Amino acid sequence: MLNSIDHLGIAVYSIESVKKIFAKIFNLTPVFEEIVQDQQVKVVGFRVGQSTLEFLEPTSKDSPIAKFLEKRGEGIHHVSIDVNDITAALKTLKSEDIGLIDQTPRVGAEGKKIAFVHPKSLFGILLELSEELEDTNHSPSP
Amino acid sequence: MLNSIDHLGIAVYSIESVKKIFAKIFNLTPVFEEIVQDQQVKVVGFRVGQSTLEFLEPTSKDSPIAKFLEKRGEGIHHVSIDVNDITAALKTLKSEDIGLIDQTPRVGAEGKKIAFVHPKSLFGILLELSEELEDTNHSPSP
Repeated sequence: MLNSIDHLGIAVYSIESVKKIFAKIFNLTPVFEEIVQDQQVKVVGFRVGQSTLEFLEPTSKDSPIAKFLEKRGEGIHHVSIDVNDITAALKTLKSEDIGLIDQTPRVGAEGKKIAFVHPKSLFGILLELSEELEDTNHSPSP
Repeated sequence: MLNSIDHLGIAVYSIESVKKIFAKIFNLTPVFEEIVQDQQVKVVGFRVGQSTLEFLEPTSKDSPIAKFLEKRGEGIHHVSIDVNDITAALKTLKSEDIGLIDQTPRVGAEGKKIAFVHPKSLFGILLELSEELEDTNHSPSP
């Protein structure tokens, strides 16, 4: 059911700093960079094996990432895991009384179907389930 | 330089609860389970693609994981990334003034060479670098 870690979402104050540091110390160049209006964040992604490290900088004080930074500081915000059938996964989670932030899948920035599971129900992990659509190009889903 | 996410280390109060929930909702069975004396934790691992979700339950109040739980509650504690040459990686990090918790590699629970990078130097991420040794079987490195 859980195929792979699609990405880690990491809350940061400045993606420019991340780009400099990651280029210098890890010799990594971004695989994408964009603004996701829906979440009010700028995102830069670095590929590491099957997964992407996605750094999220808020573009407004109302961004969920701005609130996270205010409360906890910089750090890992969520983990996104690829599943084959997100609708079936959500149905199973509901039947086991796992709290869902998204009751039904919504469309993420890159056209993937995504849904968040509540960290209180899952050992403090903010889990994003993600179902890849066919024939889409990669872009971020913070 | 960064090959893949080897594992996510997740601090929890009870790995028995994790095992029940993960079996029920994700149909996952542990790939290993053991006590790591050095870190004073019980560990259970679930494979997800290239990576492992490693859940860490403290066996003593002095465990670093017990201290994390007290301060932050359950959640993602660290991310471990596989590198080819950990000694070279640490040298590069030092030359760029990135704070290291381990100045030189030490041997992790499974015989891998590991070293932790300070989260203050890396956007709040507690990063473990990990170099796989040849001819070793998988076991956890919390």
